[in-house]
Amino acid sequence: MKTYYTACSQAADLQWDNYRQDFLTLSSIGKTANGEYHRLAYSEEDQLAHELLRQMAQKEHFLTQFDSAGNLWITLTGSNPALRPLLFGSHMDAVPNGGAYDGFLGVFAAFHAMRILKSTPPQRTITLIVFRCEESSRFQCATVGSKLIAGALSAAQLDHYQDAQGISLSQAIASVNGQQAIDLEKQRNNIENALAFIELHIEQGCLLEETSTDLGIVTHIAAPYRQKVVIKGTAAHSGACPMHKRKDALAGAAEIVLAVEQIGKQYAHQNVTATVGSCTVKNGAINIVPGEVALLVDIRGIDKASMQQAVMEVRSQIQKIIAARKLEAEVIVLGEETPVQLHAPLENVLHAIAQNAGFRTANMISGAGHDTMYIASLTRAALCFVPCVQGISHNSAELVTEPVQQNSVVFLLQIMRDICCTDFDENML
Amino acid sequence: MKTYYTACSQAADLQWDNYRQDFLTLSSIGKTANGEYHRLAYSEEDQLAHELLRQMAQKEHFLTQFDSAGNLWITLTGSNPALRPLLFGSHMDAVPNGGAYDGFLGVFAAFHAMRILKSTPPQRTITLIVFRCEESSRFQCATVGSKLIAGALSAAQLDHYQDAQGISLSQAIASVNGQQAIDLEKQRNNIENALAFIELHIEQGCLLEETSTDLGIVTHIAAPYRQKVVIKGTAAHSGACPMHKRKDALAGAAEIVLAVEQIGKQYAHQNVTATVGSCTVKNGAINIVPGEVALLVDIRGIDKASMQQAVMEVRSQIQKIIAARKLEAEVIVLGEETPVQLHAPLENVLHAIAQNAGFRTANMISGAGHDTMYIASLTRAALCFVPCVQGISHNSAELVTEPVQQNSVVFLLQIMRDICCTDFDENML
Repeated sequence: MKTYYTACSQAADLQWDNYRQDFLTLSSIGKTANGEYHRLAYSEEDQLAHELLRQMAQKEHFLTQFDSAGNLWITLTGSNPALRPLLFGSHMDAVPNGGAYDGFLGVFAAFHAMRILKSTPPQRTITLIVFRCEESSRFQCATVGSKLIAGALSAAQLDHYQDAQGISLSQAIASVNGQQAIDLEKQRNNIENALAFIELHIEQGCLLEETSTDLGIVTHIAAPYRQKVVIKGTAAHSGACPMHKRKDALAGAAEIVLAVEQIGKQYAHQNVTATVGSCTVKNGAINIVPGEVALLVDIRGIDKASMQQAVMEVRSQIQKIIAARKLEAEVIVLGEETPVQLHAPLENVLHAIAQNAGFRTANMISGAGHDTMYIASLTRAALCFVPCVQGISHNSAELVTEPVQQNSVVFLLQIMRDICCTDFDENML
Repeated sequence: MKTYYTACSQAADLQWDNYRQDFLTLSSIGKTANGEYHRLAYSEEDQLAHELLRQMAQKEHFLTQFDSAGNLWITLTGSNPALRPLLFGSHMDAVPNGGAYDGFLGVFAAFHAMRILKSTPPQRTITLIVFRCEESSRFQCATVGSKLIAGALSAAQLDHYQDAQGISLSQAIASVNGQQAIDLEKQRNNIENALAFIELHIEQGCLLEETSTDLGIVTHIAAPYRQKVVIKGTAAHSGACPMHKRKDALAGAAEIVLAVEQIGKQYAHQNVTATVGSCTVKNGAINIVPGEVALLVDIRGIDKASMQQAVMEVRSQIQKIIAARKLEAEVIVLGEETPVQLHAPLENVLHAIAQNAGFRTANMISGAGHDTMYIASLTRAALCFVPCVQGISHNSAELVTEPVQQNSVVFLLQIMRDICCTDFDENML
C-alpha cells in the first residue's frame, strides 16, 4: 500500500492535525461509550452532524444549502462560471452499532480536500453533496436522499415507509427541513448540468486489502432484491407436543436460511450474494415450539438476469420446504432495484489521475448499494473504494488506517486539482 | 368422550351458570382484544387474578392465606381435625399470548368443586394451592412457587434470575408480598403432613383426544434440560462481503436448529423432545450478515439416561457445526431438572374413582413440567390430564370444550366426596 503521508512528507500540505481534530469532533456525534456509532437517518444525532458540518463549511466561506430532502450542499465557487461544476458526495448516517468510516470518510475527505484547495481557488466550481438516509436500517428504504433527487421515490412511498416507532419517512424528512430548503427539481437540474459526480467510499470488503491495492474504481454496482418471508406453523408446548406432531416454524425457517446461503454460493461466480440478515420468532420462548417466524432476505447481483434466477430459485426452495413441513409462508417483496453500470471514460480518467499520484488501482464491482446508483441516472458518475481493515463494516470494529485516510484526501485533492484547477479536456468524458 | 352434564342432567348440581360467570370474570384478567392472554408471573394482571380469586374464596367463607412466595392457599376446613388434609393445586400465570385453560382450569375446577361440596361439609380438610410462576416465560425459571415450597430454589438463585427489564425474581416476589405472608417452611411442613396432593391440568397434547379418553393419569413427568447457545461469527455488509468470506452466525444457528430437531426425532421413541424455542439475531438487519445469534434449547425426557444422551449429542453436533463454519459458540446451561415418577397407589385410587364415575381413563406421561414435580418430593402426588382441542396449548387458540370442563369439576368433586366425606381407607395409599 502506498502511504502518501510518510512517503511524501506532506503532513503540512495535508493539514493533518486539522483533519484529525475535525474528523473526531464530527464523527463522535452519536458515538457511545463502548465505541459504537448510533447515527440513524434523520435522527437527532444525524441532524446535529449535518448542522455541525454546515458550520465548519461556513467557517471556510463555502456556500451551504439544504435541499428539501435534507441533503446538505457545500460549494466552493470556481472563478470561471462557464465551466460545468464537478460534484462529490457520500453520506453521514450509520446503521445501528455501525462504524466511523462508512459514508463519513467520503464526505469528510472531500470536505477536507476542498478546504486545502481553497488557498489556490479552482476555475471550476466544486460541490460536495451530503446525502441523507443512505442506510436502510431505520426505514427499510436505502439511498433516500439520492433517490429523491433522481425522482425515484414518490410521495406515497414516503408516507408508506415507517420506522419501528411508526414515524413515516415523510414525517422524518419534514422534521429536519427548514424554510429555505432548495427544491429537489432545481437540484436535479444542477446535477444534470454538472460535468460529473464522484463518490469515495470504504470498500466494506477485503479485496483491496488482500491484493495490496490502494484504490478500487467501481465498474458496476449490484442492486438488492429484498423480501420478507413470514413462515407460519403451529405454536405448541415444547414438552407436551411430540416431535412427529409439530409444525415448527423455526425449523422451517432454518431450512430456508440454509437454502438462501446455498443459492448465494451457487451464483457467487456471477457476483450474486444472498443473505438472511434478520430472523424474528413471534412470542419466542424456551418452552414454546415456534408458531411464526419472519425472515428478511437480501439478494444482490450486478446482472439482472442472474439475480432474477437466484430470486426464483429462493422462491422455489421456500415452496418446497413449506410444503414438505406442512407450513404456510407469505413472501412480501420489500424492494427491487436495478444494477448500475458506471461511466467507463470517467473511470479511465480516475485511474490515470490515481496512477500519476502513485496509487495502485484496480477495477472492481460494488456489492453494496450507494447513492452513486441514482446520481448515475443524471450525470457521468464514478464510485471509488479505499480499503478498510479486514473488510469489516456495518460494525463497530470498522477501521480505516490513517495512511488510507490520507490517500483518500490526496486522491480527491488530485482530482480537484487536475479537473478543476487546470484546463481539463472535457472531451475525455 | 363421556359428557357428564348431558348424561346425568346434573346441571343444577354443578351450579354451571355460576361456574361459567366466574370462570369468565377471572380468566378475562389480562385478556386482550384479540383473545390472547397476557398474565405473566408476578405481573400486575397475575396479582389481580390472585386477589380476585381470594375475594371469591372469602365470599364462600373459605380460609385464605398467601405464603411468602405469593402462592395462594384456600382451605375448606373439615369436621375431623385428626384426618390428614387432601391438597389440590395448579397455577394461574400464563405464557405470553397463552390461552385460558393452561393451569387455570385446574385451579378453577377445584375451587368450584369446593364451593359445591360446601353444602355437605367434608370430614377431611381440603386445601387448594394456587402456585406462582409456573411458566418460565418471564424469568427463564419454571415452577417457582412449588420449588420454593420444596426448598429447591436458593436466595442466590432468586437474585440471579431476571426478566427482560432486569427485574430479579426476588424483587418480583417482594412486589406481591403482604406482611402476613406465611412462612414457606411452615407450608412445606403442612404438605409433608397431608394425605396427598392432586393436580388437574390440560394435556397440552392430543393423545387423549385421539384415543377418546376422558382422563389421563400421569405416571412420569419429563424434566427439561435447558441451555442457551450463543453463536458468534463476524457481522459484515450483505452486499460487499462475498459468500466464501462469510462467518454467518445465523446460517450456523440454522444448522443447530435442524440438528436439535433431528436429535429430538431420533430419541422420540424414548419420550424425548428437543426444541429451539427462541432465536435472536443481535443487531439483525436486512443488509447485515449476522454476527451473533442466541438460541434457547429445551430437551426433555422421562428417563435421565436417554435425556443425557440427547443432550450430549446436541452438544457434539454444535461443536461439529461451529468448527466446520469457523464460528464460535458458548453454551450456557440454564437449568437441569430430574424426571419424576409419581405415586402408583394414588394413581390406582384415582383410576378407580374416575371409572366408578363412568370416565374412560388411561395412564400416560407428561412431557411438560408441572408444580406436581416438586410437591411429589413432599407427599404422595398425582397429576391428571383432561383433553384440550387438537392438543393446542401455549397459544391463544387453546380450547377446552364445556363437557370436558364439566368432567373436570365432576372428577375433582368425586375425589373430594370419596376421600374427604367418607371413611376413606388411608392404607390404600
